[in-house]
Amino acid sequence: MRLALFQLDAAAARSGADGLLGIDRCLARAREAGADLAHLPELALPGYGAGAQALRAEAERAAETIARLQERVEETRVALALGLPVADGPVVRNAAVLLRPGEAPVVYAKRFLYGDYERGAFSPGTIISPVVAFGDFRVGLLVCFDVEFPETVRALAQAGADLVLVPTALPAGEGARFIARSLVPTRAFENSVFLSYADWCGRDARFAYQGLSMVAGPDGAALAQGGEAQPAMLVADLDPAAFAGPRAANNYLGELADSTP
Amino acid sequence: MRLALFQLDAAAARSGADGLLGIDRCLARAREAGADLAHLPELALPGYGAGAQALRAEAERAAETIARLQERVEETRVALALGLPVADGPVVRNAAVLLRPGEAPVVYAKRFLYGDYERGAFSPGTIISPVVAFGDFRVGLLVCFDVEFPETVRALAQAGADLVLVPTALPAGEGARFIARSLVPTRAFENSVFLSYADWCGRDARFAYQGLSMVAGPDGAALAQGGEAQPAMLVADLDPAAFAGPRAANNYLGELADSTP
Repeated sequence: MRLALFQLDAAAARSGADGLLGIDRCLARAREAGADLAHLPELALPGYGAGAQALRAEAERAAETIARLQERVEETRVALALGLPVADGPVVRNAAVLLRPGEAPVVYAKRFLYGDYERGAFSPGTIISPVVAFGDFRVGLLVCFDVEFPETVRALAQAGADLVLVPTALPAGEGARFIARSLVPTRAFENSVFLSYADWCGRDARFAYQGLSMVAGPDGAALAQGGEAQPAMLVADLDPAAFAGPRAANNYLGELADSTP
Repeated sequence: MRLALFQLDAAAARSGADGLLGIDRCLARAREAGADLAHLPELALPGYGAGAQALRAEAERAAETIARLQERVEETRVALALGLPVADGPVVRNAAVLLRPGEAPVVYAKRFLYGDYERGAFSPGTIISPVVAFGDFRVGLLVCFDVEFPETVRALAQAGADLVLVPTALPAGEGARFIARSLVPTRAFENSVFLSYADWCGRDARFAYQGLSMVAGPDGAALAQGGEAQPAMLVADLDPAAFAGPRAANNYLGELADSTP
């Protein structure tokens, strides 16, 4: 399975030059690259730093946005994972959405909101994402800060996920390089799963982002990694044969299941 | 608090040249370096690869060994953390032992035994280590493979530990560099704790070891790191002031406690 991760430039979202057309361009580029799945950052619409009012407005049209994006997925036959605000009755969720050709949309609401900005704009989710089939993989979703808690990836792996997609918006600064370079691949390694972490780079009106997007294999190695400053499409081929070695060397899920307590 | 981590050469254990006298030398060197605590690898006695028979014999004299080492700790006023086999009725545990001046010994039995060699020689422990005061810190113990499971360090941190001591014997080979360089510091980072990982280097009759011992700070940075091949005393000063920054940036334990479910 070929994955195209889009590390997007936050300045483009800020200028309003992107939006749905930008996502269309990503799907077109992913198809040209022979990818089966395009993976975009957290709040790809309307941009992470767009502010609570814009996030709420985007959330209230989420149903039609998802329908429109699902059409594009059907046309291109390229699946799409991205972050999007989604209205849920009176509240707004910071969601990850997975759209596959011929399948119903999957929506997951971020559990661990980060900082005052997100707590002011969103209500946290309380349940793990569905784990759904895509190609040879079983896919689970997280958003950004969620992945820094080992409990979240473990819960998905125990529910059968072997590919975890994480739209993210990692604020640049102390700790961010460690998270991107050490913590994120550790989540893949300690569960013997593939993990894709699609980040913004550059800055919008409110925040600067770390870049360093990554696709990690079940051995923790980077199959693809973005730089700190430049937007990029990162293409990685995910091969289920890569599970065997790590799982034989360190059967973490099996050992845990067999252990007391 | 000054910690002296001893990355020991497995060939010395193999030759029988070391043993209790070797531990005495470590305590003396630690004292000369002004250290408050000496940290040695897994099964420092009789050596990780000594075989089931030697491990059982060592385990059966563990009470007198611990008494003898406690005397040395009282004399040198240097605390000692090391791995040791310990008899527990008819079974043998792969234990971590912490000896502090003027305090009762703390013994923890490894929960996650690694591979056929350990499963043939030991029975697994089933409870987390006590968390005990030492200087400005609250100390918890793990052994080797335990630390690769995020659940173990999390449980100690939730029980109040802010310094986790891990005697280890990391087999050289695929995955070991990732564990030493990425996973181990991630455990410190994701719990905002200090973590000391004291490994063997070189080889004994059965195994080769990875080295790459490490003292990690609560920001995941290496305060000291050993090489792959050479034995070394690594000295690190642990300052409780280092907790504030990481805990303000990412209050993982607090967020987890506040989260549903």
